[in-house]
Amino acid sequence: MGISITLTPIGEVIGGRIELEDDAWGEVESVIRLNPQQCTEESLRGLEEFSHVEVIYYFHLVGDEKIEFGSRHPRGREDWPLVGILAQRAKDRPNRLGVTICELVGVNGLEITLRGLDAINGTPVLDVKPWMQEFSARGTVKEPAWAGELMRNYW
Amino acid sequence: MGISITLTPIGEVIGGRIELEDDAWGEVESVIRLNPQQCTEESLRGLEEFSHVEVIYYFHLVGDEKIEFGSRHPRGREDWPLVGILAQRAKDRPNRLGVTICELVGVNGLEITLRGLDAINGTPVLDVKPWMQEFSARGTVKEPAWAGELMRNYW
Repeated sequence: MGISITLTPIGEVIGGRIELEDDAWGEVESVIRLNPQQCTEESLRGLEEFSHVEVIYYFHLVGDEKIEFGSRHPRGREDWPLVGILAQRAKDRPNRLGVTICELVGVNGLEITLRGLDAINGTPVLDVKPWMQEFSARGTVKEPAWAGELMRNYW
Repeated sequence: MGISITLTPIGEVIGGRIELEDDAWGEVESVIRLNPQQCTEESLRGLEEFSHVEVIYYFHLVGDEKIEFGSRHPRGREDWPLVGILAQRAKDRPNRLGVTICELVGVNGLEITLRGLDAINGTPVLDVKPWMQEFSARGTVKEPAWAGELMRNYW
């Protein structure tokens, strides 16, 4: 392999939080401001008919030296198991990608207002997709206890 | 803006479908083979405790000239509305990113076997995350009628 893929952000997160925090993202409101060199108002036509959107973004503040390729304790909690970086959702991961489903508050020109986007002010946005309930996990979802604990106060 | 972001695939889809089709992805089994220059078995430690994973991949066969920045009828269906590219999940989109939640069948060394990954053989994989039910859409999901129709036979 060894190929590389070059992407251009379609926009940027404006507002919301200035610094990353672990928890209580649920009520945070922020805006994705689309880049007019990449998108037009037409790119968003009909988005308001959806209640939720899925955002793919880039953890731009993670330095190369921080990226984990092996395993670690989620949030450094040694009472939780050692977990591979691809078996947790930590930001310090290969390619630094984040994905979140959040509530659509409104669309205004090239600005999309969202509630519950867990990305800070200035985060580059790589994609916005409408959330369709048919894309939810099919079948019964199972996850380990540490994940439920970690997520308890996330939103 | 105008910055660009360079990513290196962590692996590749092996097996499943050879050509893209619109529907009936639900029973397709395929493997993500991780690139040993990017990942180790340790990267996957504990993944098997999850029933589902979320995969971010790259629609590598979409040529530059195919990318839609404005709006179009989903699947070319003129009986459906004109919809912005960011208000639909079509592959011909800025940055060519796909995201899907699929069922984890098993992990073996650097190979992850999945059911219901809607990406063809050879697709570059940019990230694998465990699916946690807490990341589901919070609140009631609303979507337009065309989306439900499009998804009717997707899985």
